Amino acid sequence: MKNRTLLMIPGPIEFEPAVLSAMGEPTTSHLAASFIEAFGQSLEQMRQVFESPSGQPLVLAGSGTLAMDCAGANLVEPGDKALVVNTGYFSERFASILQRYGAQVTFISTAVGGHPHMEQIKTVLESDSFKLMTITHVDTSTAVLADVQQIAALGRKYGVLVVIDGVCSVAGEELQMDTWGVDLALTASQKAIGVPPGLALLMIGSRAMEKFQKRSTPVLNYYTDWTNWLPIMQAYEARKPGYFGTPPINLIFALRVSLGQILKEGMATRISRHIVISRACKAGVHALGMGQVPLKPEFAANTLTAPKYPPGVSGADFLAGVLKAGVTLAGGLYPSIRPEYFRIGHMGAATQADILVTISAIESALVGCGYKFSPGAGIEAAKAAGKNPLHFIQKN
Amino acid sequence: MKNRTLLMIPGPIEFEPAVLSAMGEPTTSHLAASFIEAFGQSLEQMRQVFESPSGQPLVLAGSGTLAMDCAGANLVEPGDKALVVNTGYFSERFASILQRYGAQVTFISTAVGGHPHMEQIKTVLESDSFKLMTITHVDTSTAVLADVQQIAALGRKYGVLVVIDGVCSVAGEELQMDTWGVDLALTASQKAIGVPPGLALLMIGSRAMEKFQKRSTPVLNYYTDWTNWLPIMQAYEARKPGYFGTPPINLIFALRVSLGQILKEGMATRISRHIVISRACKAGVHALGMGQVPLKPEFAANTLTAPKYPPGVSGADFLAGVLKAGVTLAGGLYPSIRPEYFRIGHMGAATQADILVTISAIESALVGCGYKFSPGAGIEAAKAAGKNPLHFIQKN
Repeated sequence: MKNRTLLMIPGPIEFEPAVLSAMGEPTTSHLAASFIEAFGQSLEQMRQVFESPSGQPLVLAGSGTLAMDCAGANLVEPGDKALVVNTGYFSERFASILQRYGAQVTFISTAVGGHPHMEQIKTVLESDSFKLMTITHVDTSTAVLADVQQIAALGRKYGVLVVIDGVCSVAGEELQMDTWGVDLALTASQKAIGVPPGLALLMIGSRAMEKFQKRSTPVLNYYTDWTNWLPIMQAYEARKPGYFGTPPINLIFALRVSLGQILKEGMATRISRHIVISRACKAGVHALGMGQVPLKPEFAANTLTAPKYPPGVSGADFLAGVLKAGVTLAGGLYPSIRPEYFRIGHMGAATQADILVTISAIESALVGCGYKFSPGAGIEAAKAAGKNPLHFIQKN
Repeated sequence: MKNRTLLMIPGPIEFEPAVLSAMGEPTTSHLAASFIEAFGQSLEQMRQVFESPSGQPLVLAGSGTLAMDCAGANLVEPGDKALVVNTGYFSERFASILQRYGAQVTFISTAVGGHPHMEQIKTVLESDSFKLMTITHVDTSTAVLADVQQIAALGRKYGVLVVIDGVCSVAGEELQMDTWGVDLALTASQKAIGVPPGLALLMIGSRAMEKFQKRSTPVLNYYTDWTNWLPIMQAYEARKPGYFGTPPINLIFALRVSLGQILKEGMATRISRHIVISRACKAGVHALGMGQVPLKPEFAANTLTAPKYPPGVSGADFLAGVLKAGVTLAGGLYPSIRPEYFRIGHMGAATQADILVTISAIESALVGCGYKFSPGAGIEAAKAAGKNPLHFIQKN
């Protein structure tokens, strides 16, 4: 008997058996030929997953917050002006990081669950001279999906570095870094990348690298300083050993496996699969009479769903009921609405069957909470919405 | 057939099968009851391994350098005076970190492979008012073991915070944090702690915590800021969930297993075992006519050995020969003497048998390099030295 539940939170996710096997393999030296090859391949694969042939990949031991810290510390100099497109908790965290390194931050904000208008962003970009802007591609706290392609085009027009927090998007949402003009994107291993937590991943575009090289002040953070790591990444990619700090060897072997699986599926197919699974989940939630945190379906993420509890349903009772039915879901995270909603992650290895199990567990929990609905309605809606595979049309 | 060699480098080391199994287990939520218990237990176990009942444990996703960065960023304020007891490459790295956060660093230096005299340290401590001093317990680049007990006592006498880089010592060399008056000790998972690379571990003593709480300037590093992490560590230890960044779940489950094994062996027995294995290794190396980087046997580490190549032996040929014989060793690291020596790690799960296999591989490689010696001399000496279990006498 599996002594665990189906893990449907927005990270960590359910990982592929081959990825977990790689995690448990005996560790090699960081200078062993097999590891040099695995790390070199991972860096090359990252460029394909981020769709950034011109980018410089960077892998560090750390969490997604470290990836954000790494971007902020290396790109910000004291006094720089930064624009933060605020779509939730993690946008606000990025602002705190930029401020820590001396940036003057201007927010573009909307209501919780909202999405800034392009006009609003344009007006602010026109009003001052910003060095960089950050966009949370998917804010894990609100499930709001930002239109990176449009916002990045605008940022580029105004000569601003476009930095994407892709922790809850890379390998799950469409992101064509080079084509869209994104200057830096970052993520963590435990979401759509499909590797247990412990890796911070960045892809540094050439304009971001130039700004870094032209810094007039030292980076205010030692561990994440690109000066320390760029020669190491370049060495491994050239299949040569390098040393600055000991790399997280088992996690990197696992990364190579997962990136290989992602590329074998193909980026377009993978993104399309995420959209179909997300539609199924959202249709199920809607059929059960629950609203969602994102104010409009057009900007609801495909990597997670953030349903609102029906009136009278207690979050603690509901989540305990879901767990009893064999599924782990996540509670709310955005402070001002935390008790009002929960979160379902559906990234990476997640399948339509996982969605049906999840919606079924949600129905059981709702029954337990005394909520009245037509039993099976959620499952039927999810099944119907997930039936037709999407013909994915790339935006470019 | 095992598609790998015996890993005898000073980290990562050979890991116990139960630790590797934990690495490859399906990942749970960071808020799951099983993970909260595992993390809580790990924090409690850390206090025992660091011998710091009064300490505050801290575990972050990152490398050993991140642990050093974390200590430096949280304890240093711009303008603080710091003393660095320099016994190698990693002492110098600690100085760079302290300087990054605004410290004025004074070095206490000796010849490469040397060990500072207590009088020398005392003179410097008397000459100025230092906020903190750093000591590299074992410098992985030189295999020099610092006398932490004595230096810490001196530091305490002068009211200086005593910070120990224990990356190559904790759980392998004697360290009685509280009894010796050490204010902060840090390490990484992949050395004597016995867990694959990816965890930075710190134990913060009460005086270090007080200094942190009385800071008049913000910590100049976001990710490692204790303000973010202390409530999380305290929550998990109280068996409550907490969230700041996603913890490296699989690594922490593995940490619980390894710390449990360490405590089952018992700290005194474990340290004693490391001394015996180290003696065997050093006796073998000596019998083959090789010198060592540490200038005197009294301050050679017990977690690794740093032999010098015999005249006429090329490091590249030698290490390739050792690898061909089934053992991975590490080359030199300290810049000014890098081509002159190599390093053998013998920490954690390492056994006497591993030492014999290693010395045998070294003999094979030396034969291949045309070096003349009495075949089997190294193995015989190692066997003899490893025969008598040490009756370990605790210093306190």
